Amino acid sequence: MIGMAVVGYGYWGPNLVRNLWETPGVSLVSVCDLRVERLATVRTRYPTVETTDDYDALLQDPRIDVVAVATPVSSHYLLALRALQAGKHVFIEKPMTATTEQAQRLVDEARRRNLVIGVDHTFIYTGAVRKMRELVEAGDLGEVYYYDSTRVNLGLFQHDVNVIWDLAVHDLAIMDYVLPGQLPVAVSATGLAHLPGEPENIAYLTVFFAGNLIAHVNVNWLAPVKVRRTLLGGSRKMIVYDDLEPSEKIKVYDKGITVNGASPQDGEKKYQMLVGYRAGDMWAPQLEITEALAVELKQFVSCVEQRLAPLTDGEAGLRVVRILEAATRSMADRGKVVELESVGQTV
Amino acid sequence: MIGMAVVGYGYWGPNLVRNLWETPGVSLVSVCDLRVERLATVRTRYPTVETTDDYDALLQDPRIDVVAVATPVSSHYLLALRALQAGKHVFIEKPMTATTEQAQRLVDEARRRNLVIGVDHTFIYTGAVRKMRELVEAGDLGEVYYYDSTRVNLGLFQHDVNVIWDLAVHDLAIMDYVLPGQLPVAVSATGLAHLPGEPENIAYLTVFFAGNLIAHVNVNWLAPVKVRRTLLGGSRKMIVYDDLEPSEKIKVYDKGITVNGASPQDGEKKYQMLVGYRAGDMWAPQLEITEALAVELKQFVSCVEQRLAPLTDGEAGLRVVRILEAATRSMADRGKVVELESVGQTV
Amino acid sequence: MIGMAVVGYGYWGPNLVRNLWETPGVSLVSVCDLRVERLATVRTRYPTVETTDDYDALLQDPRIDVVAVATPVSSHYLLALRALQAGKHVFIEKPMTATTEQAQRLVDEARRRNLVIGVDHTFIYTGAVRKMRELVEAGDLGEVYYYDSTRVNLGLFQHDVNVIWDLAVHDLAIMDYVLPGQLPVAVSATGLAHLPGEPENIAYLTVFFAGNLIAHVNVNWLAPVKVRRTLLGGSRKMIVYDDLEPSEKIKVYDKGITVNGASPQDGEKKYQMLVGYRAGDMWAPQLEITEALAVELKQFVSCVEQRLAPLTDGEAGLRVVRILEAATRSMADRGKVVELESVGQTV
Amino acid sequence: MIGMAVVGYGYWGPNLVRNLWETPGVSLVSVCDLRVERLATVRTRYPTVETTDDYDALLQDPRIDVVAVATPVSSHYLLALRALQAGKHVFIEKPMTATTEQAQRLVDEARRRNLVIGVDHTFIYTGAVRKMRELVEAGDLGEVYYYDSTRVNLGLFQHDVNVIWDLAVHDLAIMDYVLPGQLPVAVSATGLAHLPGEPENIAYLTVFFAGNLIAHVNVNWLAPVKVRRTLLGGSRKMIVYDDLEPSEKIKVYDKGITVNGASPQDGEKKYQMLVGYRAGDMWAPQLEITEALAVELKQFVSCVEQRLAPLTDGEAGLRVVRILEAATRSMADRGKVVELESVGQTV
Repeated sequence: MIGMAVVGYGYWGPNLVRNLWETPGVSLVSVCDLRVERLATVRTRYPTVETTDDYDALLQDPRIDVVAVATPVSSHYLLALRALQAGKHVFIEKPMTATTEQAQRLVDEARRRNLVIGVDHTFIYTGAVRKMRELVEAGDLGEVYYYDSTRVNLGLFQHDVNVIWDLAVHDLAIMDYVLPGQLPVAVSATGLAHLPGEPENIAYLTVFFAGNLIAHVNVNWLAPVKVRRTLLGGSRKMIVYDDLEPSEKIKVYDKGITVNGASPQDGEKKYQMLVGYRAGDMWAPQLEITEALAVELKQFVSCVEQRLAPLTDGEAGLRVVRILEAATRSMADRGKVVELESVGQTV
Repeated sequence: MIGMAVVGYGYWGPNLVRNLWETPGVSLVSVCDLRVERLATVRTRYPTVETTDDYDALLQDPRIDVVAVATPVSSHYLLALRALQAGKHVFIEKPMTATTEQAQRLVDEARRRNLVIGVDHTFIYTGAVRKMRELVEAGDLGEVYYYDSTRVNLGLFQHDVNVIWDLAVHDLAIMDYVLPGQLPVAVSATGLAHLPGEPENIAYLTVFFAGNLIAHVNVNWLAPVKVRRTLLGGSRKMIVYDDLEPSEKIKVYDKGITVNGASPQDGEKKYQMLVGYRAGDMWAPQLEITEALAVELKQFVSCVEQRLAPLTDGEAGLRVVRILEAATRSMADRGKVVELESVGQTV
Repeated sequence: MIGMAVVGYGYWGPNLVRNLWETPGVSLVSVCDLRVERLATVRTRYPTVETTDDYDALLQDPRIDVVAVATPVSSHYLLALRALQAGKHVFIEKPMTATTEQAQRLVDEARRRNLVIGVDHTFIYTGAVRKMRELVEAGDLGEVYYYDSTRVNLGLFQHDVNVIWDLAVHDLAIMDYVLPGQLPVAVSATGLAHLPGEPENIAYLTVFFAGNLIAHVNVNWLAPVKVRRTLLGGSRKMIVYDDLEPSEKIKVYDKGITVNGASPQDGEKKYQMLVGYRAGDMWAPQLEITEALAVELKQFVSCVEQRLAPLTDGEAGLRVVRILEAATRSMADRGKVVELESVGQTV
Repeated sequence: MIGMAVVGYGYWGPNLVRNLWETPGVSLVSVCDLRVERLATVRTRYPTVETTDDYDALLQDPRIDVVAVATPVSSHYLLALRALQAGKHVFIEKPMTATTEQAQRLVDEARRRNLVIGVDHTFIYTGAVRKMRELVEAGDLGEVYYYDSTRVNLGLFQHDVNVIWDLAVHDLAIMDYVLPGQLPVAVSATGLAHLPGEPENIAYLTVFFAGNLIAHVNVNWLAPVKVRRTLLGGSRKMIVYDDLEPSEKIKVYDKGITVNGASPQDGEKKYQMLVGYRAGDMWAPQLEITEALAVELKQFVSCVEQRLAPLTDGEAGLRVVRILEAATRSMADRGKVVELESVGQTV
């Protein structure tokens, strides 16, 4: 039995608590928040769970093996660091930290102490994203050409992070998982803050990869409609992933181009001979529908028990934060490319 | 009665010829193409129309007042220039020319000779785009915050121009019309050519404006599904324009944010008080459904008769080409911003 | 404070209990079910609620003012009757009873004892259905011509009632509310039981009204996709109500026909002059999004306190059951019309 | 080379003429209509085609092998009969005739003279309907349980036929083809004429079959939205056919129920054990996209040349008209079942 505590009972904390309450092998010991009125809600719903606003005391509690951090991003680093220093494993909401350097330090600290970090990249544990990875790995898509995502809605404006940190983080986590072996090398981002003094509420992010692959994410807190739609294009097949579809979230199109071997010295018409189009069936595979957070927590607990790295470990969190940081820098320079190598070197 | 000739009977030429054939006040005199087998088709369908592969002879024909240029982009400039020099008005397919300099020279030549240039920005003449302009001009949207368009499909790869010149040109023309008084100042674009030796088949284009406005266009020749969808966001209302909807192409959402007058020195929680959300009704206005090209040609002919500038005149064509050129330059530099002033100066 | 008990903790009972638990002015005293393992779940989630499998004892409990009946349809009548006889108000799941006669007797019993019956026609309390009633009552639709509903999915086959009692009951309840003053006079229904020994799993129901109005309901437990779509057509406007739309459940179309006053003796072409079409804007009003069951229970409790009839009282339940019964009879005779008067007289 | 004439140049005639003009092996000799202003249009578009308002003269013309009848339904019989009597093959618009008796007489007349009748059930020649037949015949659906179609729009009110003859005719033709070997035995229909003196503009039609199969068609000239959607349910797979989908018109769902062999004497819970649900992948096969009318005419011409019966011959037209006639009779009696045997006997 793993003893757990949750710090932060705001937007996402209640989902964590509800799931941990029902996760086999977990004893939810305590919930910590500075807002005591939030804690009253916890006690009503979960009468056996303790509540506190004293994080230090919580870290001393020997019944607690893992601390789950669900506070605003700016506080992730210090809360997680202190938990690690107190010998606790940590589970951290996305994005992992506010800077690459912070993420790197948490990774280092955990490695030194042989502790497990899980980062809550929830989408990785959905049936849809797992199916995409499966299809990519099996080679069904052929060479992967692009990842193109739109993630917009009339959203909660945030004040401490821009819309890339709030929404594009999901796509970066998905890309990190769905495109194994693909190395992001540079980032260009543009965006605008429509309200003075606020962070950017609309942004466009391009990620360049080492190979013949490009990724793009369109995020917006000020859209009249909610869109969660990703195209994943390959040389042999292409996927449309629409997370708002009640069923059929993943559609696989047997479409693409064919390039024949016509000789290149045929003059101006050579290309019209070389490039052909191919259109075949569409197929929507049946997907697992277990709640992603439940799957994730179960795997995380199992990793803690065996001292193994989860699918979305601290390294994954770090890779995502590194791109978020580069994107914000590029956006400040109206799209000027930021090499990811150089970002890595500053850590 | 205006005498007209069409040069180029390839992809779009047949649409032009079919519409000109039925445009009141137009006498379609001749169709010119170097491929004589194409001309045979013209003679079968339109027995009274002459055909020729001799452009010089055509320019000598005193019955012809206007030459419509529907050839590949690279030849637009020379064909249009010679028509103007022969004293003919011209109607040019989009994009107007292959370079800003060429477009500027055509504009200058026409002005000098008091001739009319029309550029075929067809979308401007659709009921949907005209309704958007009407709503923007009436102030219904409030301050316009962004224009965000996705225009993708499994398309005909082109070999002389990249996907921005082929598809984003439509959005630039629409923005030029729908956002009157808004000054584009800089461009950042990214993209990739997946086939070696070919132009970019996927691209992302951001246009920065002088004011609190940003535009973005996502274009792709290699998408498994066809999308033609534009969000136009304002401070008071927002529009979703979906050109593939059989009816209800324009949906106006009474949604937005409200910013109240709370004092800014209230500490960290000030913003959560300042920004509120507003969601109201949605409304899909009935639209004109006349074929856009027919409307456009009718207006163009009327402009020629009165020596007036059409809505989409040479200046409009030039403004669009200027951004296309800057976008291509930015794309070569992986998103590095290109100021539009400097582009203008090179002309 | 109204003391309540729930009998039946199967499919819908948990929703009732969850809502009653949070309904202001309600004290949820007890939950009764014959399956003791179900009651264990209740005690875990709601530690202060008593559980029992002894309905007689429950009826003796003076703390209980209202009994909510959430058992299979066949037992509704006896359980509700005994509750009324014990002086309790009752809240009954849909459909109210298994026969018209039973419904009539409950109505009579409650009237005699001055007790309140509420029937759980949940849809009546949704924002969408209330908006339809509002538009009909305001005369926006003009004369109402038809109600046409499709309610199909791959559903839980039931064994005690056919698909009309399970699904069409919703539409009959909605029609009863949305079409005030419209008198249903006869019913024709067809259907088929694909599994031998089972009730009909697919059915088509037409309701004839006294005036220029017709209603139709298509229900099916064996459909590959879920559809919840109703057309409500009027002489001036028409509504599409799609309950699966996340927002915009109600779309109002300014469409219809116009009949002009051309004289009828004009020969064969008279009609083409008489009937015209009108197509205008579409409008999707913002709807209330409070959970319908919460709204319903709050109103029901208020009715009990004041001894008032709820919107969906026993009479409403009776009117719906009367049509369900007639429909089943018609279906057995492959669509032969069943007059609703004669059904009424048998009671 | 087959010589053809078209009589009737109203709504559908122009489509016929345009297609015949381009059908290989066809010489379109003449177009006949009583409205001479319509004929002028023909001469402009097709300068080599003769026009006439003298049907008798046309029937004398030895160059004409086939007469295509595209006039209002009420005149189909006489025009076709006279063509057959003049030794011409006939191609008749749907519905074939206004009564079963008329259809039977045409079939008899053609048989006697060894002439070919084609009935223009265009949908049979679409890629979508052919794919459905192919899947049914291959047994992919298992036992076919139901055909359920919705075909509504804001349509042209007709004055000589009701909405069943105008719209449901398509579904009856499709069912006739897609469900080979299934014998329709009886019909129940309901409907309403909202405009006094006009035919029914809204109708609901149930067709009972000899086996475990039921069909239903919902047709409406007064709907705010256009719907063309058919469910075809089987024991193993189910199809959704949406004719308004630009691609993916046919979706095949690997969904259904499973009935296991639990013994029937297990008491009330037996059924919950017997019936299970199965949900698997969805698949949208690539379809042929050739224009259906072109395919149909090509096949028809080939049948004429070889004196073979087309897929949609006079017998098919007769079978469809027989159901239309029975439906109209049932509708007059508010759904009372009409046996198709008895209808057959009256012929």
